[in-house]
Amino acid sequence: MQIAILLYDNCTVLDAVGPYQTLGPLPGAETVFVAEQTGPVLDDNRSLSLVAAKSLAEVTRPDIVIVPGGPDPDVRNEAVLDWLRTVDAASTWTVSVCTGSLMLAAAGLLDGRRATSHWTTLDRLTEFGAEPSRERVVFDGKYVTAAGVSAGIDMGLTLAGRIAGDEHAQAVQLMIEYDPQPPYDAGSPSKAPAALVELISGAPVPGR
Amino acid sequence: MQIAILLYDNCTVLDAVGPYQTLGPLPGAETVFVAEQTGPVLDDNRSLSLVAAKSLAEVTRPDIVIVPGGPDPDVRNEAVLDWLRTVDAASTWTVSVCTGSLMLAAAGLLDGRRATSHWTTLDRLTEFGAEPSRERVVFDGKYVTAAGVSAGIDMGLTLAGRIAGDEHAQAVQLMIEYDPQPPYDAGSPSKAPAALVELISGAPVPGR
Repeated sequence: MQIAILLYDNCTVLDAVGPYQTLGPLPGAETVFVAEQTGPVLDDNRSLSLVAAKSLAEVTRPDIVIVPGGPDPDVRNEAVLDWLRTVDAASTWTVSVCTGSLMLAAAGLLDGRRATSHWTTLDRLTEFGAEPSRERVVFDGKYVTAAGVSAGIDMGLTLAGRIAGDEHAQAVQLMIEYDPQPPYDAGSPSKAPAALVELISGAPVPGR
Repeated sequence: MQIAILLYDNCTVLDAVGPYQTLGPLPGAETVFVAEQTGPVLDDNRSLSLVAAKSLAEVTRPDIVIVPGGPDPDVRNEAVLDWLRTVDAASTWTVSVCTGSLMLAAAGLLDGRRATSHWTTLDRLTEFGAEPSRERVVFDGKYVTAAGVSAGIDMGLTLAGRIAGDEHAQAVQLMIEYDPQPPYDAGSPSKAPAALVELISGAPVPGR
């Protein structure tokens, strides 16, 4: 089983690493990081490069393809969109985290499908014909989309359970000691202080 | 403010990325990834390299130093231990995730201090004179240790709040949409099925 995780300039590291850490241990799986060119790819905080081991042309039939997000994913990059359409044609699961769903949608892969994204960009899914959902992890057929950044961990464990069973996924959860205890309860726009939501989204929060 | 995150062969990516994603946005902060040599450093799943931008010799006075863990951290690597002692002498915060605390302890920095680690290695802290704690995030003076892998996210948000205030940390939590919804409740040895805990730790679970 091959898992391909796409990298591109300005992507968010945790979007890629959450699924890597949770799906990488699947029995018999090999994970490959792939980008337009091989070599280091700089993240959106401009301080960390992840290395793409393979170019797009070298990865043609992954079983699972995973697209991380970033603050401004290039939904007009035809080389990447073409590759997404190609690998999706043979994939078992086509997956995104955060704004990665905008790239899947821009490639035409989420037409009429339910999908999620980072909360600040959820509405943009409709531009590309997808149906936005506020759930943290959305399954629609073989398409699996996760909400912003850290949601890739919950998505990865959920998908690992579907593929390899609950016991395997629980073992992964125990190995990464994923027993979350956030010091605040501000991780979604429905829970964070309204002033913060407005500051980050640039829009008023209805009814709050 | 400089944040230095140590990389070494066979370290666990999420251990480094959790703090990076949560502490990197601190106001005025610059994050640098550092290793014995600059260049790509391969992770414990052997599929992803993170790039160290600086060598140990180039990073001498970080304000925050962060040590990720891995399945077998080299607690006898004198070059790294020497560097840890050097940077700790001037750091504001000295931090670890997962088994990274064993390296801090091996460097002699946790003598008589409360600390945590990955649940499978917690007892080993006593070999180096530290006092193991089962808490997920442990503060003892300027020393901050997190439990296994994903605990680095909770640690990073907690420390971000201490440094820059609750509102800043909540904004970070909202940006990374950290509203955890794990599909299982198996993320700690006290919650996971006893059979799994025994399988992973290689030891029977008392009283279960």
